[in-house]
Amino acid sequence: MTDLTKMFNPESVAVVGASNSEGKVGYIVLNNIINDGFKGTIYPINPKDDEVQGLKAYKNVSDLPEVPDFVIISIPGKLVNPVVKECGEFGVKNMVVISAGFKEIGGEGVEREAELVALGKEYGINIIGPNSLGTTDSHTPLNSSFSQIMPPEGNIAFISQSGAMMVAIIDWSLTAGIGFSKIISLGNKAGTTEIELIEFLADDPETAVVICYLESISEDEDFIRTLRKVSYKKPVVILKSGSSSAGAEAASSHTGALAGSDIAFDTAFKQSGIFRVTTMDELFDVGLAFSKCMLPTGRNLAIITNAGGGGVVSVDAMERYALDLVKFDEETNARLKEAVPEEGSIKNPIDVLGDAPVTRYKESLEIVLDSDEVDGLVVMVCPTASADADGIAQALVEGANEFDKPVIAVNMGGPTFENANKLLRDNGIPTYVFPETAVKVFDYLARFAAVQERNYDNPVADIDDVDKEAVEAIFAKVKEEKRDTLLGSEAYAVAEAYGIEAAPIKLATSPEEAGTLAEQMDFPVVLKIASDKILHKSDIGGVKVGIKSKEEAEEVYKEIIANANKAHPDIVPNGVEVQKMMDSGIEVLVGMIRDIQFGPMIAFGMGGVLVNLLEDVSFKLAKGLTTDEISEQIENTKVIELLKGFRGEAPGDIDAVKSAIIRVAKLTLDFPEISELDINPIFVYEKGSSALDIKIKLD
Amino acid sequence: MTDLTKMFNPESVAVVGASNSEGKVGYIVLNNIINDGFKGTIYPINPKDDEVQGLKAYKNVSDLPEVPDFVIISIPGKLVNPVVKECGEFGVKNMVVISAGFKEIGGEGVEREAELVALGKEYGINIIGPNSLGTTDSHTPLNSSFSQIMPPEGNIAFISQSGAMMVAIIDWSLTAGIGFSKIISLGNKAGTTEIELIEFLADDPETAVVICYLESISEDEDFIRTLRKVSYKKPVVILKSGSSSAGAEAASSHTGALAGSDIAFDTAFKQSGIFRVTTMDELFDVGLAFSKCMLPTGRNLAIITNAGGGGVVSVDAMERYALDLVKFDEETNARLKEAVPEEGSIKNPIDVLGDAPVTRYKESLEIVLDSDEVDGLVVMVCPTASADADGIAQALVEGANEFDKPVIAVNMGGPTFENANKLLRDNGIPTYVFPETAVKVFDYLARFAAVQERNYDNPVADIDDVDKEAVEAIFAKVKEEKRDTLLGSEAYAVAEAYGIEAAPIKLATSPEEAGTLAEQMDFPVVLKIASDKILHKSDIGGVKVGIKSKEEAEEVYKEIIANANKAHPDIVPNGVEVQKMMDSGIEVLVGMIRDIQFGPMIAFGMGGVLVNLLEDVSFKLAKGLTTDEISEQIENTKVIELLKGFRGEAPGDIDAVKSAIIRVAKLTLDFPEISELDINPIFVYEKGSSALDIKIKLD
Repeated sequence: MTDLTKMFNPESVAVVGASNSEGKVGYIVLNNIINDGFKGTIYPINPKDDEVQGLKAYKNVSDLPEVPDFVIISIPGKLVNPVVKECGEFGVKNMVVISAGFKEIGGEGVEREAELVALGKEYGINIIGPNSLGTTDSHTPLNSSFSQIMPPEGNIAFISQSGAMMVAIIDWSLTAGIGFSKIISLGNKAGTTEIELIEFLADDPETAVVICYLESISEDEDFIRTLRKVSYKKPVVILKSGSSSAGAEAASSHTGALAGSDIAFDTAFKQSGIFRVTTMDELFDVGLAFSKCMLPTGRNLAIITNAGGGGVVSVDAMERYALDLVKFDEETNARLKEAVPEEGSIKNPIDVLGDAPVTRYKESLEIVLDSDEVDGLVVMVCPTASADADGIAQALVEGANEFDKPVIAVNMGGPTFENANKLLRDNGIPTYVFPETAVKVFDYLARFAAVQERNYDNPVADIDDVDKEAVEAIFAKVKEEKRDTLLGSEAYAVAEAYGIEAAPIKLATSPEEAGTLAEQMDFPVVLKIASDKILHKSDIGGVKVGIKSKEEAEEVYKEIIANANKAHPDIVPNGVEVQKMMDSGIEVLVGMIRDIQFGPMIAFGMGGVLVNLLEDVSFKLAKGLTTDEISEQIENTKVIELLKGFRGEAPGDIDAVKSAIIRVAKLTLDFPEISELDINPIFVYEKGSSALDIKIKLD
Repeated sequence: MTDLTKMFNPESVAVVGASNSEGKVGYIVLNNIINDGFKGTIYPINPKDDEVQGLKAYKNVSDLPEVPDFVIISIPGKLVNPVVKECGEFGVKNMVVISAGFKEIGGEGVEREAELVALGKEYGINIIGPNSLGTTDSHTPLNSSFSQIMPPEGNIAFISQSGAMMVAIIDWSLTAGIGFSKIISLGNKAGTTEIELIEFLADDPETAVVICYLESISEDEDFIRTLRKVSYKKPVVILKSGSSSAGAEAASSHTGALAGSDIAFDTAFKQSGIFRVTTMDELFDVGLAFSKCMLPTGRNLAIITNAGGGGVVSVDAMERYALDLVKFDEETNARLKEAVPEEGSIKNPIDVLGDAPVTRYKESLEIVLDSDEVDGLVVMVCPTASADADGIAQALVEGANEFDKPVIAVNMGGPTFENANKLLRDNGIPTYVFPETAVKVFDYLARFAAVQERNYDNPVADIDDVDKEAVEAIFAKVKEEKRDTLLGSEAYAVAEAYGIEAAPIKLATSPEEAGTLAEQMDFPVVLKIASDKILHKSDIGGVKVGIKSKEEAEEVYKEIIANANKAHPDIVPNGVEVQKMMDSGIEVLVGMIRDIQFGPMIAFGMGGVLVNLLEDVSFKLAKGLTTDEISEQIENTKVIELLKGFRGEAPGDIDAVKSAIIRVAKLTLDFPEISELDINPIFVYEKGSSALDIKIKLD
């Protein structure tokens, strides 16, 4: 793992482009380092001045008396690379390039950035940027950015792909009362990526949670597994904007059409154990909760409120987030009865009434937290005439300290809670204005606890009974014939080689062969014209079902060829395919669409002619796919109800479905040239399954 | 309509229970009236003191020298009703009862409340409460509540069913910078309801938008039409907490099971033209927008930002709310090219760059607002080093003033924007911290503009070719036989009487009659055992299909009766039903579940055996149902794609579907004793339709 310790906690920093001219970026950066409390050695680098902002300046980095731990570069873009080279030769290992003029301007900037990347690799320099706003570390402290405000201290690490939004968030944090451990402006992400930063921050003792605003995800061959190694250590919350790399465009298959434009990111994040949020609000609400709270061991939430209405709103929100409203046991009930007047409510949500004094809050919350069934608590205060905001906050801090459970405060109001909010947040209790937010963040806490319990196995790797050579040979033939779509018989052979249960389908190139093949299969069989060029096969008399004898098969062969020749005199068909007719079963679909960034994405859902209408489908990425995820994928559809046996009908063989998913994952991981794959329908029986129609398209 | 003018803008008020003891509610209320600026005459009513808080006090309301316009009652609950009676006799017309001790305490409180209601009716007094926190009017000004803070002045009216939450919101408004025209604490809603208040506020010149926190909706026989009369005048936004009156419990029918616990409220609000929000945040975000903004004439939104990231986040949000990202015409493009540097972007979202001076913002926003294609504008500012927050705000105010379009500001940050936010809000421009919120509220503005364009006709009232007596006779017979479920033949007769196209089904009570009926219909026919007590008819040999002659029908009659007697010797079947076999068509469902509060709720969706799995259904309430709503109901399902002709298949007769919906609405409005109705499937043909299975259940 990349060690970035010295980038954030250096003993010495050099500022290339440090300036005496106020307003220049090189002035602001140096000024920030000096004034925001950095305690190490600061080396201004300036070709002309001997002294910058009162410090001895050097002409070049290589003139320095020591190798600085961290170099900040703020000079015109075209001058950057020679300095980076000089730094590399001098032994510098950590650098942020604030200078712009790289990829973002196109043209020569693109080349310049490529050169920068190469230099970073050659000399082993961790480079943040270029076009970065810099970084801040509130614990060192070090403000190497040109944000004029040093962010308040805290334990949230914030990675931002937008410099302007980083500045906005720092400004906003002063009002919102949010504190940061480190803030990093990614700039163009030419060197150190957000993935490396997340890996580093997962082990940073000053960081409790990593939150990111990202517009793209850096390349990582094994993204999901890389992130899993860190996502169980620390919550990672990402606002990923913009659309996916996967394909609204590449939608020639059912699966392709079903995959929304953003589904690959959603899926990748979920499988990685990362949390995706959709709004900035949510990013910081959730970040705050993770920065303060213990983790719950379950989803049982209790609510204490002095306003009935707040309780009702909370329960509504709990329903939306599928959280469990604890039903208290008898002992807890008995204790609550002592603490809460009769006109209140001791049923969750507990209503301690508008006139609740501090003691009533304190007793109630201790009783509730003491109950084994309770995994977490939201305490809500409305500023009624008798509510003592500060006193209740103090009671909350004292009570919460006695128990290892998350406690979240809702102080519904403004000025009344100014002190209370500060007291609570300073003592490990996040505070929000509205109850829905508290309920939402508890859901995230519980979900992170569940991520830590995940079991990451690798069922795809366990598959060893596949015939890779057979598939290679088929694909070679298809490519040789300059086709990109496999014939049904070829697709069947591929499925067979990978152990995917399918209805046999074989190519006959003469009436006799059709007869022999039909006989080898059990009757009845179907005959279909074999050609990737004839699309509507039924319409031209190219398909005949229910063939019951060898002789009939021979006759039908000729008939089909004649029909095809008549309809398409210009197309030479490959022959006629013979397929065994199967009993019908529960119809499901298994498909694959390849995402540019994350590789094969496997679809599972209800099959049949209405797939694109019913859109009953769930996606998982093949890389990193686990047994639990496959189960979840199947459970996340409606067709699971049919597989379980719907309204007295026979159930379907779910293990056969899982096998099909794993084997399609294996196949599409083994063969990157498969761009799309659709198996629809697969008939699922009480025992086993049979793929009826397999479409495979190559790049 | 109830005239509440004097309640909010009285010339004289009396406070019954006015007190000299600090801390008492009667002290606080009088103190608020005096100190929060009320300019009219104030009469304290106190049985002991001659003077209260420096004002001459009276022993009784009837001792006053004039009839006060408004009376506030704050005495122990059990003393209230005699005073109300006294007030009534004295001629008082407006009153708020702050006293508790009514329905909320149960027992005698329930009776006391009933008596209070009766007194209000007898004397024609508008009564808010009891158990209310009071009301405030910031324009009069008058604070008749016991909130210690007078809410800031503004044009949002807030109605709250929770007193504690009202206080919380007033406190919060000081920080949030939100102003109110009136705030009303509903209390127990024994007299004046939220519906009457909304009606009154719709014509209140000081109110631009009505926002409500409600835990229940008051009874109104014709809720939708009542609200429609006001909802086109002024936006009404409701946070309705708690679950619906409709039936998770009453789920014996398909339709019942498909109706979620909260769907009736959702549906009622949508059809009324009211906006429902799910969180407190949203309630006030939306309220603020309506309180400031002009309405757009369409959904084309433009974005100006000084941070690319903010633009991307906005576009993501626009996609979520299905708003249109304007593509500018050539002239606008040309003008923008002059105003924005090349490194920026003149494609929507417009990126004026981090270094944008005020003039660049000003020019860009004027060009954009001047474009006919643009219906509204979001202007975003990140606090970059060169961003002049106040200057941009000033430019925004000036620019926006020139055009009749909504402009929404996103000032992403905290302290930097303190002045700017105030300047903007004071000049009719709402401000938010994050771009998603701005995009969301624009969606509401556009939706309200669309509400104003709605066409409310009444197609159900136009149906006059129904035979009500025939249905009455059938229901009478069913009730006489002490059944609650109609036989298929009876349900068919009901459908026939109401013009719902259905496959004929008639009851035969002898083999001969079965033969005759079968002959009268076209062959083939189906025979089914007729009994509401035999549930799984097919399993016991009680159904035979494909009967092709009179003789066969006679034979099968005997066979079915014999099978039924064998399987259920204890049940005497009603006979055998003969139904014409129909060609199959597109399968849809039309159903009805009766909501306790809003009456018949009509379901439409995909039909067939998988209805409860596919859940492709859309609901509308029958009361107030319009032609446009029926179209919308059909469009809001997936089965519409089948009706339009899916993948080359024949389309279905959508007019026939509409007719079925209207006639089911008519039938279930005419007969309140129908508790549930399911028609599944209806076969829809290219011309016409045919209901195959009709289930009607009576109360």
